[in-house]
Amino acid sequence: MIILGIDPGIAIVGYGIIDYSRGKFHVLDYGAITTPAHTPPEDRLSTIYADMNTLIKTYHPEEMAIEELFFNSNQKTAIQVAEARGVILLAARNNNVRINEYTPLQVKQSVVGYGRAEKQQVQTMVTTLLGLPKIPKPDDTADALAIAVCNAHTGGSRLKDFYNL
Amino acid sequence: MIILGIDPGIAIVGYGIIDYSRGKFHVLDYGAITTPAHTPPEDRLSTIYADMNTLIKTYHPEEMAIEELFFNSNQKTAIQVAEARGVILLAARNNNVRINEYTPLQVKQSVVGYGRAEKQQVQTMVTTLLGLPKIPKPDDTADALAIAVCNAHTGGSRLKDFYNL
Repeated sequence: MIILGIDPGIAIVGYGIIDYSRGKFHVLDYGAITTPAHTPPEDRLSTIYADMNTLIKTYHPEEMAIEELFFNSNQKTAIQVAEARGVILLAARNNNVRINEYTPLQVKQSVVGYGRAEKQQVQTMVTTLLGLPKIPKPDDTADALAIAVCNAHTGGSRLKDFYNL
Repeated sequence: MIILGIDPGIAIVGYGIIDYSRGKFHVLDYGAITTPAHTPPEDRLSTIYADMNTLIKTYHPEEMAIEELFFNSNQKTAIQVAEARGVILLAARNNNVRINEYTPLQVKQSVVGYGRAEKQQVQTMVTTLLGLPKIPKPDDTADALAIAVCNAHTGGSRLKDFYNL
């Protein structure tokens, strides 16, 4: 099964695309969609939406795994990340990619086996699991691959309580 | 000039479309895009995006006026509204509609002439200004018309500080 892991953001959207079959990982692509600062938000959203469409049409993932959004201390950033997350969900939905969501706790638990693992531990484990030569940069890319691995280990997950489904 | 006023939301997106020429208002349409609760967020976002595209292609607004988003006490709601706002901005951007943003203070100041006006005062004034038989319902629709009137009175506005443009 081809899984698209996404770490959402407005400046950087990390992505990692893996094929998980018979317990084995095969990395298809990973990287980051970036948008320039000091440009109107709708231009950045449009870039993210277009690049997401290109990724999906190139690799035909069956599932997208994306982290649940939590508020942080920076209100401005959180709103912009949520706006970006909106167009990312839209791109998946309009290309019939099933969407799974995970909390950071679930990702750590699934990848390292320990919910309070450090970020560095998660990245090292993901790099080993996927047989990559070194930890992918930026962090957003490594995080996206971790979410994809979590999805492979866990299977589908919706935050039903969050959305009152 | 044709102006599309939007009050963003995930359950209800209020909209109001007015033509403002030579100091006179002409109402073209108003109403609300609604999405059912207990459905996946991507389906709701997809409905909002599709309906926004239909509105824009029907009325060809030159500008969209939308309220700035503030965090409220409900974190879950704020994230979902911001996700909806993302696809609304995307629809405007991808149809070449110029986007203006206003704070609630600007809307009240512009419509009633008093930044601390009550919601009811704003709605009554908008109804009078636009020559409508009664206050449009739901509130989201009346609020969307108020933002459109604010845009007509004010001209373009970007929250440059907010986005560090």
